[in-house]
Amino acid sequence: MTTFDVIAFDADDTLWHSESLYAAAQEEYRRLLAAYAETEVIDRVLHKTEMRNLPAYGYGVKGFALSMIEAALELSQHQISGSEVQQVLDLAKRMLSTEVELLEGVAEVVAQLAETYPLMLITKGDLAHQEAKIEQSGLKPYFRSIEIVTDKTPQSYAALLARHHIEPLRFLMIGNSLRSDILPVLEIGGQAVHVPYAITWAHEHVDVPPDQQGRYHELERIGQLPALVEQLNH
Amino acid sequence: MTTFDVIAFDADDTLWHSESLYAAAQEEYRRLLAAYAETEVIDRVLHKTEMRNLPAYGYGVKGFALSMIEAALELSQHQISGSEVQQVLDLAKRMLSTEVELLEGVAEVVAQLAETYPLMLITKGDLAHQEAKIEQSGLKPYFRSIEIVTDKTPQSYAALLARHHIEPLRFLMIGNSLRSDILPVLEIGGQAVHVPYAITWAHEHVDVPPDQQGRYHELERIGQLPALVEQLNH
Repeated sequence: MTTFDVIAFDADDTLWHSESLYAAAQEEYRRLLAAYAETEVIDRVLHKTEMRNLPAYGYGVKGFALSMIEAALELSQHQISGSEVQQVLDLAKRMLSTEVELLEGVAEVVAQLAETYPLMLITKGDLAHQEAKIEQSGLKPYFRSIEIVTDKTPQSYAALLARHHIEPLRFLMIGNSLRSDILPVLEIGGQAVHVPYAITWAHEHVDVPPDQQGRYHELERIGQLPALVEQLNH
Repeated sequence: MTTFDVIAFDADDTLWHSESLYAAAQEEYRRLLAAYAETEVIDRVLHKTEMRNLPAYGYGVKGFALSMIEAALELSQHQISGSEVQQVLDLAKRMLSTEVELLEGVAEVVAQLAETYPLMLITKGDLAHQEAKIEQSGLKPYFRSIEIVTDKTPQSYAALLARHHIEPLRFLMIGNSLRSDILPVLEIGGQAVHVPYAITWAHEHVDVPPDQQGRYHELERIGQLPALVEQLNH
């Protein structure tokens, strides 16, 4: 008998690159607005705008695009030109059409674990974009179920596990975000493996949990996951 | 024994008003761009832009907002001002913050049918916005399950029914859109009730199916639904 009934993965920055696309877009955005404001001001106003709009827009590229346009209007005091707005739209479209690029080791690890465990994918963001990325990734056949959620909170994980009749203690979540993938899962009694991504969005920074250490694991690379799962089974 | 194992409802323009918000926004959009183009040209360019972006953006207000901005750039030959772009953003934000308004009879019909049948809600659009509207509607407790999908095709309905172990013949779908709620359900062998909304988005216009008439029903108002369901049980 194994320790886990289900192993679940986050998608963006756990299975494939995502934050690097946002970072590259923001880099271009800074260049585009360099005539209107300093880099730090651009970053601060964009972040503030994103945070303010998050409850209405949710996560994902479309909301980011709308926030980039709104912040550009504020930063330029409405002096931004039509063709500059067009360039912001083009940035967003390029993000949406960029081919999914799997992180190193992901294809092998997912295929290997799928032989023994029902796998689940739990991701937040734009429905259409997430579905397109899942299709493109080639990983879809390995996942027993795919859940696209608006936010990852203890409540949303608890509801999801209840719907699938999964006991939290027998649930393992893998992800790059302490805030979204690790802390809420630990809070409801699940186990979690943190695999940090090279870049972390400012919004996702939180402190490591001081308690619940027994159910918390950290790996440098996802390639180390099968060995950890094997070890937790003993 | 009843004829149906599950009764499913579309949400936008079936349970609550939605298209009327898009129509009102488009009316304001025309006024905003009146200096740059004729109404018909505005409508044509906006519709063309929406259709071109649909595969990347999916359904919902955020994609509509990005398409409105893109079409405004085209219609004004990039001459649109920053404060006009701001007004388009404001239009979208107003759409997202408008309180849900249920259609007449919906609250009673849903409560009544939930006493006998497991109800399901199947809707497409922005994840965050749809969830907010479901919460606001007050109808959430009546639905056994809520499915937010990127598109409503025979394939997506078939996958959804298989996942819930529902036989198509014992599935009844209620909706305002022939294209999204009725035809694909008839195609996979389900039953469907068309309750037209006062306004139909151009994209959703299709012909009534000539065959499959036995599993197709049409009502003028959703208030007539419990009587129809009762009748189909005999």
